[in-house]
Amino acid sequence: MLRLDPRDERISTTRHFRAWEGGGEYNLARGLRRCFGMDTAVVTALADNPVGRLVEDLMLQGGVGQKYVRWAQYDGVGRTVRNGLNFTERGFGLRAALGCSDRGYTAISQLKPGQIDWEEIFRKDGARWLHTGGIYCALSETAPLVAQAAMTAAKNAGVVVSYDLNYRASLWKSIGGKAKAQETNRLLAPLVDVMLGSEEDFTSALGFEVAGLDEQHSKLDTSSFQAMIKKVVQEFPTLAVIATTLRNARTATVNDWGAVCYYGGSSTRRGCAKIWRFTIALVLCLWIDLRIFGREGSAVGRRPRRSPWSTRNDHSG
Amino acid sequence: MLRLDPRDERISTTRHFRAWEGGGEYNLARGLRRCFGMDTAVVTALADNPVGRLVEDLMLQGGVGQKYVRWAQYDGVGRTVRNGLNFTERGFGLRAALGCSDRGYTAISQLKPGQIDWEEIFRKDGARWLHTGGIYCALSETAPLVAQAAMTAAKNAGVVVSYDLNYRASLWKSIGGKAKAQETNRLLAPLVDVMLGSEEDFTSALGFEVAGLDEQHSKLDTSSFQAMIKKVVQEFPTLAVIATTLRNARTATVNDWGAVCYYGGSSTRRGCAKIWRFTIALVLCLWIDLRIFGREGSAVGRRPRRSPWSTRNDHSG
Amino acid sequence: MLRLDPRDERISTTRHFRAWEGGGEYNLARGLRRCFGMDTAVVTALADNPVGRLVEDLMLQGGVGQKYVRWAQYDGVGRTVRNGLNFTERGFGLRAALGCSDRGYTAISQLKPGQIDWEEIFRKDGARWLHTGGIYCALSETAPLVAQAAMTAAKNAGVVVSYDLNYRASLWKSIGGKAKAQETNRLLAPLVDVMLGSEEDFTSALGFEVAGLDEQHSKLDTSSFQAMIKKVVQEFPTLAVIATTLRNARTATVNDWGAVCYYGGSSTRRGCAKIWRFTIALVLCLWIDLRIFGREGSAVGRRPRRSPWSTRNDHSG
Amino acid sequence: MLRLDPRDERISTTRHFRAWEGGGEYNLARGLRRCFGMDTAVVTALADNPVGRLVEDLMLQGGVGQKYVRWAQYDGVGRTVRNGLNFTERGFGLRAALGCSDRGYTAISQLKPGQIDWEEIFRKDGARWLHTGGIYCALSETAPLVAQAAMTAAKNAGVVVSYDLNYRASLWKSIGGKAKAQETNRLLAPLVDVMLGSEEDFTSALGFEVAGLDEQHSKLDTSSFQAMIKKVVQEFPTLAVIATTLRNARTATVNDWGAVCYYGGSSTRRGCAKIWRFTIALVLCLWIDLRIFGREGSAVGRRPRRSPWSTRNDHSG
Amino acid sequence: MLRLDPRDERISTTRHFRAWEGGGEYNLARGLRRCFGMDTAVVTALADNPVGRLVEDLMLQGGVGQKYVRWAQYDGVGRTVRNGLNFTERGFGLRAALGCSDRGYTAISQLKPGQIDWEEIFRKDGARWLHTGGIYCALSETAPLVAQAAMTAAKNAGVVVSYDLNYRASLWKSIGGKAKAQETNRLLAPLVDVMLGSEEDFTSALGFEVAGLDEQHSKLDTSSFQAMIKKVVQEFPTLAVIATTLRNARTATVNDWGAVCYYGGSSTRRGCAKIWRFTIALVLCLWIDLRIFGREGSAVGRRPRRSPWSTRNDHSG
Amino acid sequence: MLRLDPRDERISTTRHFRAWEGGGEYNLARGLRRCFGMDTAVVTALADNPVGRLVEDLMLQGGVGQKYVRWAQYDGVGRTVRNGLNFTERGFGLRAALGCSDRGYTAISQLKPGQIDWEEIFRKDGARWLHTGGIYCALSETAPLVAQAAMTAAKNAGVVVSYDLNYRASLWKSIGGKAKAQETNRLLAPLVDVMLGSEEDFTSALGFEVAGLDEQHSKLDTSSFQAMIKKVVQEFPTLAVIATTLRNARTATVNDWGAVCYYGGSSTRRGCAKIWRFTIALVLCLWIDLRIFGREGSAVGRRPRRSPWSTRNDHSG
Repeated sequence: MLRLDPRDERISTTRHFRAWEGGGEYNLARGLRRCFGMDTAVVTALADNPVGRLVEDLMLQGGVGQKYVRWAQYDGVGRTVRNGLNFTERGFGLRAALGCSDRGYTAISQLKPGQIDWEEIFRKDGARWLHTGGIYCALSETAPLVAQAAMTAAKNAGVVVSYDLNYRASLWKSIGGKAKAQETNRLLAPLVDVMLGSEEDFTSALGFEVAGLDEQHSKLDTSSFQAMIKKVVQEFPTLAVIATTLRNARTATVNDWGAVCYYGGSSTRRGCAKIWRFTIALVLCLWIDLRIFGREGSAVGRRPRRSPWSTRNDHSG
Repeated sequence: MLRLDPRDERISTTRHFRAWEGGGEYNLARGLRRCFGMDTAVVTALADNPVGRLVEDLMLQGGVGQKYVRWAQYDGVGRTVRNGLNFTERGFGLRAALGCSDRGYTAISQLKPGQIDWEEIFRKDGARWLHTGGIYCALSETAPLVAQAAMTAAKNAGVVVSYDLNYRASLWKSIGGKAKAQETNRLLAPLVDVMLGSEEDFTSALGFEVAGLDEQHSKLDTSSFQAMIKKVVQEFPTLAVIATTLRNARTATVNDWGAVCYYGGSSTRRGCAKIWRFTIALVLCLWIDLRIFGREGSAVGRRPRRSPWSTRNDHSG
Repeated sequence: MLRLDPRDERISTTRHFRAWEGGGEYNLARGLRRCFGMDTAVVTALADNPVGRLVEDLMLQGGVGQKYVRWAQYDGVGRTVRNGLNFTERGFGLRAALGCSDRGYTAISQLKPGQIDWEEIFRKDGARWLHTGGIYCALSETAPLVAQAAMTAAKNAGVVVSYDLNYRASLWKSIGGKAKAQETNRLLAPLVDVMLGSEEDFTSALGFEVAGLDEQHSKLDTSSFQAMIKKVVQEFPTLAVIATTLRNARTATVNDWGAVCYYGGSSTRRGCAKIWRFTIALVLCLWIDLRIFGREGSAVGRRPRRSPWSTRNDHSG
Repeated sequence: MLRLDPRDERISTTRHFRAWEGGGEYNLARGLRRCFGMDTAVVTALADNPVGRLVEDLMLQGGVGQKYVRWAQYDGVGRTVRNGLNFTERGFGLRAALGCSDRGYTAISQLKPGQIDWEEIFRKDGARWLHTGGIYCALSETAPLVAQAAMTAAKNAGVVVSYDLNYRASLWKSIGGKAKAQETNRLLAPLVDVMLGSEEDFTSALGFEVAGLDEQHSKLDTSSFQAMIKKVVQEFPTLAVIATTLRNARTATVNDWGAVCYYGGSSTRRGCAKIWRFTIALVLCLWIDLRIFGREGSAVGRRPRRSPWSTRNDHSG
Repeated sequence: MLRLDPRDERISTTRHFRAWEGGGEYNLARGLRRCFGMDTAVVTALADNPVGRLVEDLMLQGGVGQKYVRWAQYDGVGRTVRNGLNFTERGFGLRAALGCSDRGYTAISQLKPGQIDWEEIFRKDGARWLHTGGIYCALSETAPLVAQAAMTAAKNAGVVVSYDLNYRASLWKSIGGKAKAQETNRLLAPLVDVMLGSEEDFTSALGFEVAGLDEQHSKLDTSSFQAMIKKVVQEFPTLAVIATTLRNARTATVNDWGAVCYYGGSSTRRGCAKIWRFTIALVLCLWIDLRIFGREGSAVGRRPRRSPWSTRNDHSG
Repeated sequence: MLRLDPRDERISTTRHFRAWEGGGEYNLARGLRRCFGMDTAVVTALADNPVGRLVEDLMLQGGVGQKYVRWAQYDGVGRTVRNGLNFTERGFGLRAALGCSDRGYTAISQLKPGQIDWEEIFRKDGARWLHTGGIYCALSETAPLVAQAAMTAAKNAGVVVSYDLNYRASLWKSIGGKAKAQETNRLLAPLVDVMLGSEEDFTSALGFEVAGLDEQHSKLDTSSFQAMIKKVVQEFPTLAVIATTLRNARTATVNDWGAVCYYGGSSTRRGCAKIWRFTIALVLCLWIDLRIFGREGSAVGRRPRRSPWSTRNDHSG
């Protein structure tokens, strides 16, 4: 997906855009590659025109492998297939950030089960982790089927599966709304090892209530979130890790950010006794430049190389 | 339509785009307004999102009236309706200019006959000239019907109709190709007073052959073009003016440009004797910055105010 | 007026300027047009050279009507008439914002009573609101006379008149100073319905003292301001609305902003009983990018369309 | 003088300006300093505001001494004194370059004889060359008087005086036109050693006709120019060197440039026999970026250090 | 190597640089990867600091494999090891392009034989082509030894070796000059299959004279060059292909470019009869943006995928 | 030294650098010149290539005299002599600022005692203040000797000597580390009148402990610093002024800054009784754009002209 950013101006009055690549799964792959030095690749589809080739150029810079990218023939107009665009403007002070998606009829939304050889990826090439999420699954009728096929193949190959609920009302609106989102996510949840999501995601996209949240989520209260997590694990006992970000935007530039990570569950796959373990991190008054990408941990540049997660053994209780 | 331009870089490797508004009919309206001080307006439809509002902001700067712009509700994704995009890169030396259209599912392509009140425009508001052309008519099934309704209403109200053939193979490819283009344009031609087009347009989009053209159209030979025009007028005797641009790109920066304008025909509407009049202008080795917009005469900035065309009386022989 | 802005650099060491249009009355007209969708126009004069045409281009983008703009012939040098310029640099942290006006001999300062047909504007074209203020009136000897003519014509046509005191010592210095400013503003005040001004404006430009203000106006204390307003209304009983902004600059980027709006006065024109009504809004620690334009409510971009003020009936008590 | 340049855009539609310093005399001083390593200084006056300080910053970068710059107090508005501005846009292809001067009421135009201590400059500080010209002399009534005082002081101190005729109709229009220009230049010519000017300058600003020039000066014919020079020297026998540039703009980017330099005259000051010596240089199809500054030889950057002119002895026949 | 480019300004007066990666061998690898879709990798060494990591980022974008890059520990100062820099300014019209190398003490110049496992590259990883040249060999005492080891290993593994003579006087000046360059290149020539070089390179760097060259090489005369090639092949009979570029800079922007490619030699390795085959291509008045990279065929962006060279079999006569 | 700054991007992923000049001593000289209007000059050496000439251009703009700059011949490669570079990226929020020095083999590091005529500078040209410091002294073996010669000459000529300890571990690492730094600084301290340094500098570079400092120096506690100063003066009784900056970075943008200045010492040169005088200034939550240059007080632009320090007489108790 090509991201067009008017820098310190606004989309509707700018004359200049900065081009970036983006997308939840991609951001995570890029972060692991550039900040932590891991080999990652993206499985996606792009229309073969100069815009798609610009995304290729950006992903090359990101160091993310493109071996599994499918290039769809372009019709010269954008009727049959397109590349997704996202116009994103940053907030300032009282003015919130603003996004405008233009991703109908994208190549990736037209991907169908059977078009990707997951056995090659997980068995032959030896991928160790699969990450996808709720934005992809909302792109089309076929997208959840592709995700299901990928996650099942991963499960069978012993590959860890992480899933970011990432609920976007606009994407689900015309294909069944919140009810369809919950149905889709609940279908996929048993295939997930590591479930990610904001407070709102667990409610809207998975159907769990977090007690005592104020309307604006302005307090980073982790206790009611921990209670909710216990309910999630009771219903989906195969989840080994559940992690969330908590955000309170004091202004568009100064946020409180927090995270709660539950781990040590009783994954039936690993058959451990249940020990409730939570790691909680809070940062108050964090200055941010652009508040998208929170959960994907996208980082511009290079940080010291270290393992982003505990090793796999650590996931069991 | 939003035009995104990587300036002196290439689309597929740039990180920055300059935003412009564009479109054949709009360019002509903007040129008449800003170079010649005439009141003009655009009849179009846009999706109501920040990208559409950027086009509004650009058209405000262009001084073109937006009273007849229809704003379509946006779905947040771009599935039901979008705004057209055009990525355009300029050539240099041996490297030709390059365009990449992304205009499937645009609001304007979904416009239907009956949605615009042409009587208001031509009778009540007193518009004196209607300009449209072959790119618009290729956007959808309904587009030629909208054009036909507009041109008929104009004809009835005594409003001059100009039409730019502007043949683009990519647009017609999936909806019937060259045959469909010719069928559409031939249907509309009897409603036209002023027909514009390149040499290639008259051949591909209207079905007339220009004798003796070399493959690259590298000679600006006007005599065979004049012969072709006579054939066009014989078949479409209501055409009062036929104009073309002739281009020979020596390099991407240095072109020969020419124009042949036939006027003084025997429009049955005006019943004059036929006198063949041609005005020919040639400029060799013209330096150009960006070779789109040739025929629309789009001009950035302000030139001395004078009438761009002869007055209407002059059209008769 | 052309505003030249060195972005994040300083005027005296920059190599690049961003061009904007500006001016108190214009900013208000632009804000009403682009944020609230209202039709507005500016009555001004510009020298007809490329700089003036750039201001035209910027005002076109702003959507503000230019029907009443008078274009003065340029002499090629700037001896007889010029366009106003304003160099504006933004502050950062401890460094305050800085402006440098270059607006001697401007076309607008040379405007004389009788050159504008106010009857056409208020009666024929049906304008409903006239806004001007103390900066314009300081531009020349004739400026207050033009304002007086406009305000009288508005009053006669039942058009609301608002006036922003906007005291600038530098403008008045050579033409009579604070005394002349007060004389001018007091002459015009009886013609005003809606009077705007900062705390300092009411003191310096109109001669009212606000009790208990500390030197830096660092507390946003609204009570003494309310007391002052009562004195203003006693002296100018036709004022229906009095509004002020209160600012305390903690740093150049973080300000406290507030506003006090008195309405419900006993305008003799409307003959209501006097009911003191105040609306007070305070925002502490507001992050701002550039602190000019506070009172004009200039907004870059588009906010939800709603009426910026209560309807006219609401003004009476 | 501050030069504002919209780069590859046009003044009337740009949003960005690049700032440069400029002015005929200054350009020559800067070129001698940065290309040829000579110590130079500028005698001028500036208004002391951020715009003037920007010019100071630019001249510091240019390496031109500012010891003789007079700083005039600014009134905050620009009524009493201003800094000169020049908006300059470059041409392209058929489109010619365009300038817009805004230099009324500048500090330098208000300079009066007696305000500069020329004895200090020529005797104490030992300046060896004085350069001024026809643009400065057109700025005000007092400007030619200042020039006359400077040139007389230079003459007395044995300092070489060069003068660039540089006729600009717009500057002279309101103060006596071509007749006044010729009167002024003819008054000063006897004080000049080195006279510079284009073909047009010698005609319009000094009253000599060049025979056989076509209207557009499109042929770089040097013979008739040599004939004219002989007439000039007959009338002003103290001129030791007469030099001109000849320009033929094929396009805005490709010019023919030439130069004719006469030297070896019979300056009465030096009392030599008259030997007519001409040096002629022609460059056809020169590519230029911006065609101002031709004669001042302004160069951005650093060329090998060598003497720009023959040594003084060479000037005599 | 990091290339810093002041765009349309000059190095010595700019305030902005555009960063690129560069280097003869790298440019060729990047061109093959991005224009022709081939897998390529670069064997080099970089100092591990943010500048080196910027080169990594640029090479990632270039798509060139970095598996063989050695990262040298940085000392925080640049005393023990550095990254190479090259400041490059483009010419315009009469002004020639200008480069300024800053590449002493670079990591790559300190590479020693034995630090690279060529067997892994040629045998295990299956590289099919090795390209290096005369700039690398001039970097240090050890550089030719590294090149010799690489070329020998390639020869032994049946890998094609190409070598660009690329003579730069400044690099050789302090380490033995032209004599040392010729000695080095003559030592390596028997290991080369494909020898590249300009006319001047074959003379200065290899010791062959091209008869009848004018001083400025302003005629692209290919016949004397063909004669010289025959002499080269007589002396170095293992050369299978010899190619050169011929350049004549009419201005900095308009060049004549040509190429002569000899192939079909009597490589002893392949034992063919000698058949002299030459392919000659000339382009007159080519417009170029920046004239570095001629021979490496570096291309910004993507051209149609096709083989840049004939297949290997074709090299034999 | 040329400073390359990726603006709001990061060094390792940027494509654009802004060029500045820099260096501790230079920054102080520039600040005195442009903010306080004093004549200053820099004594340094530069390699004579376009990069060095860019530093010259930047220093010209800075207004700092270059009479004492030595230009070293460049070898075209950077083996014998180079110009120092410093890549500097600004922090944001949690991300700290980052610098990358590339200053091995610079011309200034190769300066030797005897190459500068200090008598000319202090006696003939009448310089009144010499400033140098610990970064320069760490550049090479000869640097402290040059500093010693300069400071001795200054002392003899009655010129005030200030010295900024400025300890940088990376510079000293390979030439003796902290022990060598302390030895060098202690050798020079008796020649210093005004000693500057951060808390850490007095400890690491001079060997004094500040009691009770927390690890991150997060409290701006001035009392223990005053106690340390007393110890410094006891050991180096000729120090007349000791000043420090105290910094606590709350975020990269919001810092607490403070300063403690001791003056009134018992300089043996002046023989006054010892009176302990301290001036303390604290600014909490200061917003900064780029935190380098704290102590040098470098200011971009022009502040009101006033004396930066008390006059010399004030230094004695």
